[in-house]
Amino acid sequence: MNILYDPRLDGVLPDVDRPALIEALRQAAPGLTILHEREQLRPYECDGLSAYRTTPLLAVLPERVEQVAAILRTCRDMGVPVVARGAGTGLSGGALPLAQGVLLVMARFKRILDIHPEGRYARVQPGVRNLAISQAAAPHGLYYAPDPSSQIACSIGGNVAENAGGVHCLKYGLTVHNVLKVEMLTIDAEPVTLGSDALDAAGFDLLALFTGSEGMLGVVTEVTVRLLPRPVVAKVLMASFDDVEKAGRAVGDIIAAGIIPGGLEMMDRLSIHAAEDFIHAGYPLDAEAILLCELDGVESDVDEDCTLVRNVLARAGATEVRQARDEAERARFWAGRKNAFPAVGRISPDYYCMDGTIPRRALPGVLQGIAALSEEYGLRVANVFHAGDGNMHPLILFDANRPGELERAEALGGRILELCVEVGGSITGEHGVGREKINQMCAQFNSDEITFFHAVKAAFDEAGLLNPGKNIPTLHRCAEFGAMHVHHGQLPHPELERF
Amino acid sequence: MNILYDPRLDGVLPDVDRPALIEALRQAAPGLTILHEREQLRPYECDGLSAYRTTPLLAVLPERVEQVAAILRTCRDMGVPVVARGAGTGLSGGALPLAQGVLLVMARFKRILDIHPEGRYARVQPGVRNLAISQAAAPHGLYYAPDPSSQIACSIGGNVAENAGGVHCLKYGLTVHNVLKVEMLTIDAEPVTLGSDALDAAGFDLLALFTGSEGMLGVVTEVTVRLLPRPVVAKVLMASFDDVEKAGRAVGDIIAAGIIPGGLEMMDRLSIHAAEDFIHAGYPLDAEAILLCELDGVESDVDEDCTLVRNVLARAGATEVRQARDEAERARFWAGRKNAFPAVGRISPDYYCMDGTIPRRALPGVLQGIAALSEEYGLRVANVFHAGDGNMHPLILFDANRPGELERAEALGGRILELCVEVGGSITGEHGVGREKINQMCAQFNSDEITFFHAVKAAFDEAGLLNPGKNIPTLHRCAEFGAMHVHHGQLPHPELERF
Repeated sequence: MNILYDPRLDGVLPDVDRPALIEALRQAAPGLTILHEREQLRPYECDGLSAYRTTPLLAVLPERVEQVAAILRTCRDMGVPVVARGAGTGLSGGALPLAQGVLLVMARFKRILDIHPEGRYARVQPGVRNLAISQAAAPHGLYYAPDPSSQIACSIGGNVAENAGGVHCLKYGLTVHNVLKVEMLTIDAEPVTLGSDALDAAGFDLLALFTGSEGMLGVVTEVTVRLLPRPVVAKVLMASFDDVEKAGRAVGDIIAAGIIPGGLEMMDRLSIHAAEDFIHAGYPLDAEAILLCELDGVESDVDEDCTLVRNVLARAGATEVRQARDEAERARFWAGRKNAFPAVGRISPDYYCMDGTIPRRALPGVLQGIAALSEEYGLRVANVFHAGDGNMHPLILFDANRPGELERAEALGGRILELCVEVGGSITGEHGVGREKINQMCAQFNSDEITFFHAVKAAFDEAGLLNPGKNIPTLHRCAEFGAMHVHHGQLPHPELERF
Repeated sequence: MNILYDPRLDGVLPDVDRPALIEALRQAAPGLTILHEREQLRPYECDGLSAYRTTPLLAVLPERVEQVAAILRTCRDMGVPVVARGAGTGLSGGALPLAQGVLLVMARFKRILDIHPEGRYARVQPGVRNLAISQAAAPHGLYYAPDPSSQIACSIGGNVAENAGGVHCLKYGLTVHNVLKVEMLTIDAEPVTLGSDALDAAGFDLLALFTGSEGMLGVVTEVTVRLLPRPVVAKVLMASFDDVEKAGRAVGDIIAAGIIPGGLEMMDRLSIHAAEDFIHAGYPLDAEAILLCELDGVESDVDEDCTLVRNVLARAGATEVRQARDEAERARFWAGRKNAFPAVGRISPDYYCMDGTIPRRALPGVLQGIAALSEEYGLRVANVFHAGDGNMHPLILFDANRPGELERAEALGGRILELCVEVGGSITGEHGVGREKINQMCAQFNSDEITFFHAVKAAFDEAGLLNPGKNIPTLHRCAEFGAMHVHHGQLPHPELERF
């Protein structure tokens, strides 16, 4: 196995003859919407990671699978890279366009093809919004479990590409655990079915491989997701702590007591204050940290679990435990959490959202480490995250207008991710690697492992035309920037221009 | 992507200079146990699929990871294929030796390296028995959920290779859902870590890809599995039906009512009688089918679910529903099910165990289809299986001493698997493809999909030395035998001699 250095994967792309490409696309896919004027392309310059921007060579908005196939064939024949995009809500720059590449916008594939209540699945097009699936399934008492914060806007195709998570993933799993089947097109426009309608499939598990592959292996054209019955009842407890590490330890204690909450979220002092000022959720302003613990299921079971969790929290040193009295209070408790990111946005000109995952038992130590790093770098860090599954979202507060602060924020972010890797964790929990964390991949994996990733990529896309420069770094990059970056903490922005 | 025909993958292997190989292995791995005499090798001729037998060129029994690495390096350098074997309990011939290959027996890697109650995981060597993990975790109130019928003997390394299932997989998932991390060696003896201690990992999901890859991508040297808390209480209901399809429909009804039982098993008349004669479990001899439904969790929850399931069963037309009165009766109910295979072995000289998975809603129709095929082929079929997750195990009864019966049994088996594929199911649920179902893969997948499998295989093992001839058929095989086989129902035994 020997992957040669491919400059295309590192963003050094050949110039494309745009008029010729437009003409070829018009021929191959009559009626296709092609955007190529600068003003038209502006909305497509970035995804949810708006610090990274590139104007694509052109954007195409197909409406039929045959058009997608024609686009892929044309791009393959002309050697033009393709970046697929769903709703553009991703937070790691997975859908960041390439200046010499086509942006394949799948937003018009919005049809829910089939809701099957007995079989408990929904078959949908990739542009369908995450929440729209649950809304369509609601009349049958069913829903789709993974619930990213962006669920009102994000598309299921993008969820598959990034293996999206959410508050309920602790109990109900990530996207990969809730997808039964994916129809996709390869760069050669070959249709391939991954997975099956049954609970297991023969051969290698290409569906799991594909989920989270960030558009590098193929383009999703249809998704079959598992639907779950709505829990009969859900109750939420809010526990206050005078010490953030105590709260971290309480998380492990709850799980160790044999309870898997529907959601188990943590917020520190800075997040609590920001959220309370914004939403008036009723959070305790004197606490150093709070835990929100939602228990769902049948009524008697939930009541029993509430008692059990209250006892665990008391033993763990909670200064106060409150149970939401009614649905309205429960909704307020969650509204504070769900709006914590924009709330933090109100108290700082800019913030940078990290996404590391660590073993639960490492929570207290990593929280301590983040506090020390925050002091070292002179930047505030708000912690608000999915504590139950160890998926942390430290928000680094900075002011991009102050010279050096952006760089310091990025350096601090790199150190935090390094800390996650050191305790046996991962540099991503649910946002993906994308363009953002490509260098940290060099800290997470050794060169043998990265070589494997490239070999797998080549098995699907030998020419490297699908979303080059994302997710998997070249060994060259790791040698040149990677290790150096992670230790010195500089994101190599300059060469972004080459995309 | 262009996979050329590789005769090695189809079993046409070059002759190996055995004395030279033995000498090279002795040099590379001093102290290694090497078996090469015919009598020594006899126990290794087959795995649990004993209808297929081949004497390996030689068998090696390493005790240290460095020895495994030395074996792999030596075999790679000499171009000798390697088949890894755990406890040899697999039912699809995944560990069937090659006459011109080395059998790498991992049985001596029996150490449990770490039980971590707080982190809820166990780190073990690959030769550790499945049940031994639960036994070691029991003092902490924890257990390892996937429970193949062979759990007293089968090894966790083999479980990973075949993505093993079991009675409890409906609720708690297959092996792939319960493994956190795998350490493996490539054919080049490179150590690679797949997965992480955290709940998600960056990059492509190679851990899921590796799980169930049947020894074709690497050799497992260490496994970290998730441990779960033992349910507080478990109760079992036994429902009788006067019609097998009604029982099939009841399975879907239970799940549709929002209940995920710990186990949901079905047995038909033939299995009931065989098991009752053997075990005296207390099964109703006048029923056409029974369902065994185990509900586990906290007491109040289980009681509520029992009531709910009783109502569903009554509506579905159950003629009788009995709840095991005590632990002894519960154990008897399960003993009948768990011994159903040997019980059927008592009423027929031979039987052939199938392993197809279908969407739950297709159960009644497929049961009807199997009955019709059973009549068409003039062979009895006993159905005893994991109904809840649609994983069927039809047992085809035959007498190998009667001319033509084996061939008829195999033909019938092929037709049953075809039926599973037709309704959107899979040719395997938990036993894997191995050598047994290699031709049915041609019915399950088209040539593009099979080409992908080969490309992924080549990414790990370009020379095709790891377990050639298993799991993924060559396109040549599909063209020559595959499609033909599935339609005419003949397993191509003759060329087995070439292995």
